[in-house]
Amino acid sequence: MSKIIKIAVDAMGGDNSPKKIIDGINHHYKSNTNTFYQIFGDKEKIQNYINQLPTSSFEIIHTKDLVKGTDSPLEGAKRGKNTSMWLAIQSVKEKKSDIVISAGNTGALLVISKLNLKMIENIDKPALSALWPNKKNMSVVLDLGANIECSPKNLIDFSIMGSSLFKSLYPDDTAKVALLNIGSEEIKGNETIKETYQQLNQRNNTDFEFKGYIEGNQLMNGDVNVIVADGFTGNIALKTAEGTANFITSELKKAMTGNIVGKISSLLNISNLKKFKERLDPRLYNGAIFIGLDSPVIKSHGGTDYIGFSNSLSVCTRIVTGNLIEKIRNNIC
Amino acid sequence: MSKIIKIAVDAMGGDNSPKKIIDGINHHYKSNTNTFYQIFGDKEKIQNYINQLPTSSFEIIHTKDLVKGTDSPLEGAKRGKNTSMWLAIQSVKEKKSDIVISAGNTGALLVISKLNLKMIENIDKPALSALWPNKKNMSVVLDLGANIECSPKNLIDFSIMGSSLFKSLYPDDTAKVALLNIGSEEIKGNETIKETYQQLNQRNNTDFEFKGYIEGNQLMNGDVNVIVADGFTGNIALKTAEGTANFITSELKKAMTGNIVGKISSLLNISNLKKFKERLDPRLYNGAIFIGLDSPVIKSHGGTDYIGFSNSLSVCTRIVTGNLIEKIRNNIC
Repeated sequence: MSKIIKIAVDAMGGDNSPKKIIDGINHHYKSNTNTFYQIFGDKEKIQNYINQLPTSSFEIIHTKDLVKGTDSPLEGAKRGKNTSMWLAIQSVKEKKSDIVISAGNTGALLVISKLNLKMIENIDKPALSALWPNKKNMSVVLDLGANIECSPKNLIDFSIMGSSLFKSLYPDDTAKVALLNIGSEEIKGNETIKETYQQLNQRNNTDFEFKGYIEGNQLMNGDVNVIVADGFTGNIALKTAEGTANFITSELKKAMTGNIVGKISSLLNISNLKKFKERLDPRLYNGAIFIGLDSPVIKSHGGTDYIGFSNSLSVCTRIVTGNLIEKIRNNIC
Repeated sequence: MSKIIKIAVDAMGGDNSPKKIIDGINHHYKSNTNTFYQIFGDKEKIQNYINQLPTSSFEIIHTKDLVKGTDSPLEGAKRGKNTSMWLAIQSVKEKKSDIVISAGNTGALLVISKLNLKMIENIDKPALSALWPNKKNMSVVLDLGANIECSPKNLIDFSIMGSSLFKSLYPDDTAKVALLNIGSEEIKGNETIKETYQQLNQRNNTDFEFKGYIEGNQLMNGDVNVIVADGFTGNIALKTAEGTANFITSELKKAMTGNIVGKISSLLNISNLKKFKERLDPRLYNGAIFIGLDSPVIKSHGGTDYIGFSNSLSVCTRIVTGNLIEKIRNNIC
């Protein structure tokens, strides 16, 4: 039997919690029976939903305290050491769990994680990363907003951490890093990005191939799979992509159902449209990953459903199996 | 009869020139008979295509020199004062034309324009702007890459210029300005953007409503219609939107034609899909506008066809009719 993976789960974050969290756990467990869940939150509420899970596969750590979605990061942290979020993070700090996940307040999760967990040695700043679809497979993109201003050293750290994350998720593929920029020529961009380019070009990158710059319109081609930016730029790119996708699908919906012929032929074409929707289903890419601390911290989207949360749990499984933190440690020095 | 609008046209820039340029002129003239075209380029080639146009509506200024698409901006400028691009710009400089348009080398167009044309008084930097679709109508977005680093003064200038452009294109609508940022709260973002926010909030904006910050995922909602960013951020957003749109439409195409049922029902639904495509047709939004100089300079996309070029000519018409430069002058002081 394979090694047991221990996941600390904040059961109280996000919409429809703890129901969707526990439903997500039930769903995840079906194909991941080597998991032990440490579940933090309101025991009475949690127990209502947990009936499918063998008692040997989980433990509920009861608390009524919780961080609210509307809290500022600092307010969230100030709710104290007995919130479901804080206790879950403490569980990885004390090595009782391998990884921690929450669908709650992102800012509070970052702050409480930074308060409790140590940085990986030689990493200066942790980064928020996520998975994006591309024409071939998936890309890791970071930083998505944890650090507004970044030095070349930070961006190089992000390249290493992003590559390690990619390799722990896709062990058979080669990590290919590019810096998000406004042109593909060496002379384009601001001073930080140009300096980073020079250093990455000279560095002996055994853990990834450095592919130079990438422009926004190439992000989804799949020629590179680790995309590095400062947190301001990365956040703008992520959210613009999200807004564009929403705009296009809503325009498509309007066009497809504008009249009776449209409705009927859309019905006929339903299986193809379903395939299209599945390919773009944001639940597939659900889960931002906070890396740089000595335990991985996973943020599931607050608005996702139990399928989305279950997918985030699968990301947890793959990150632990892929030895993310060890990979970063080996690559950073 | 309405006032004659004089457009200086660089006939030699972009793919398939001068054919697509002249075809575009022919197409534009049909619904804009109050136009006089000063056409710069290889007379012999141009005359092959121009047969539909009354001789009173155009003049060909012959030159064999041209800026190449592969030139660096400086190389383009160094090709001298006899290129079709340089001569076209000189025509607005000497007030022989009201506006200049080229589908050629963007960098060279910016450099040669800056060399020849004066800045509008009290504007420090010119900006590259474009039109984006949104759920309600269209937005003006700037800067798209002319200025990597911007001060609060620059961003305020962009707000004023963008609003003036919006009002000259859509005289009946109210210009609503927002700063592209990574959060909607006042405290988010870098120092420049926060300082700009404060100044715009205190300024007596008679020419537009200031709506605060906008995030990338809200760009296409249509709640604001003038979106302001430094050239690095704006370029990343523009190109990411472009890349996302291409990715989604190619995935959609794959899904819709994956099997015979898909093909048949897509055929049935062809008029709706056509509507969808028209709504997103990049030719509709074709034409970046370089503003801040004392004549407007229009860049049509090098890869567009004659319909796209004709649409850019229509943007020229509306900008001249809307008195863009005068609007900026009135609003800047």
